[in-house]
Amino acid sequence: MLGAFSTDHPELSLSELSRKSGLPVSTVHRMLGELTAWGALERGADGRYRIGLRLWQVGSLAPRSQGLREHAMPFLQDLSQITRENVQLAVREGAELVFVERIAGSGAVPVLTRVGGRFALTATGVGLVLLAHAPVDVQEQVLTGPLEHFTPRTITDPQVLRRLLADIRANGYAVSERQVTMDSLSVAAPVRDGDNAVIAAVSLVVHHGSASPRALAQLVCTSARAISRAMAAPRT
Amino acid sequence: MLGAFSTDHPELSLSELSRKSGLPVSTVHRMLGELTAWGALERGADGRYRIGLRLWQVGSLAPRSQGLREHAMPFLQDLSQITRENVQLAVREGAELVFVERIAGSGAVPVLTRVGGRFALTATGVGLVLLAHAPVDVQEQVLTGPLEHFTPRTITDPQVLRRLLADIRANGYAVSERQVTMDSLSVAAPVRDGDNAVIAAVSLVVHHGSASPRALAQLVCTSARAISRAMAAPRT
Repeated sequence: MLGAFSTDHPELSLSELSRKSGLPVSTVHRMLGELTAWGALERGADGRYRIGLRLWQVGSLAPRSQGLREHAMPFLQDLSQITRENVQLAVREGAELVFVERIAGSGAVPVLTRVGGRFALTATGVGLVLLAHAPVDVQEQVLTGPLEHFTPRTITDPQVLRRLLADIRANGYAVSERQVTMDSLSVAAPVRDGDNAVIAAVSLVVHHGSASPRALAQLVCTSARAISRAMAAPRT
Repeated sequence: MLGAFSTDHPELSLSELSRKSGLPVSTVHRMLGELTAWGALERGADGRYRIGLRLWQVGSLAPRSQGLREHAMPFLQDLSQITRENVQLAVREGAELVFVERIAGSGAVPVLTRVGGRFALTATGVGLVLLAHAPVDVQEQVLTGPLEHFTPRTITDPQVLRRLLADIRANGYAVSERQVTMDSLSVAAPVRDGDNAVIAAVSLVVHHGSASPRALAQLVCTSARAISRAMAAPRT
């Protein structure tokens, strides 16, 4: 039932929850009572239900998101303060990515992302890095599936994408130019754990034409390596 | 069963979960299968269970934490960049507070907080602000209960606390000097929603003796008002 809540539907009524879950109203009503008593859900003055603080607290124990974020945050802050641009941190979840952190730059280009939100792996800088280092079966699933167009520049030819992923592995970073919005450029690099496995990607997203991808790549690779070192080191 | 996970126990085995929940191993095993399939939990290579990315994602839809955080983050960033000190954002949950955001300052005084973590209302700057504006029954519950000592300076006399809470309401900010750790000073101010209700508190935590409480109060009150304005304005 918790899966019925989403970015587009952060608040739901009893009847909406019954419809979305396919469960009878009486069953949903009883479950809502239990979930609200525990704090997983909260009921607003308008009678609608939303995700509660207690569930957010339990969720914040997830090592793959909040744990990663705690290690990465000082370096993301540095990158944000030095560049004043958008800084993003994402992990792969199946054939999509999930944004774990986003620091908006003052006056930076608008971006489509939200912390906790999902996105396709094939268009953004972080997505391309995560796809380039995903298991082969995930790559095949993505490349043989429908590939979404966000702008006329979005690459949707599987052969072109395959070559691009090989380049990303060779170069150590990914460049996504006007592939998500026509005015943005993103450059991303992989974050690795102590076993050298790619566990996340960090990116800078700037106005297209405002900086060279190569200069951004040096910055973002430096930050990604610093985060990787922090992840590999024993937690203090 | 999700409530068995905590900051102190972020990873649990099947038998630990059975013990903590008081349910038979066979029942816990079946529930773990369902929770893992949905993504609420993830199983590590060591066979232990931890909170999964999916639950973190659902939790990130909570308006009282992540929603507040999204509005507040640009102002917290500004405060962090201008002062280079610790910036904290907290909400009240019953008779305790929950930290929603924490930005560590470079070289700032060490603090005891963790995002998603709980703390007493009676010692920190943010806690005193939240307690000062809590419903009377919550204040009574806290003031008549056991009051924890963190340092020799922690105020634990209910009468002294009562006067302090009145001062905080009158002054518009709270000062906590060496009450949580002997080397820290925190100054906090309330964040209000469109109906003028106090929904959160923001604070600066600095080395004791490094700045005047009054100067910090002006900074933190300015940020708190800016966040309040952003919360009251229709979301863009």
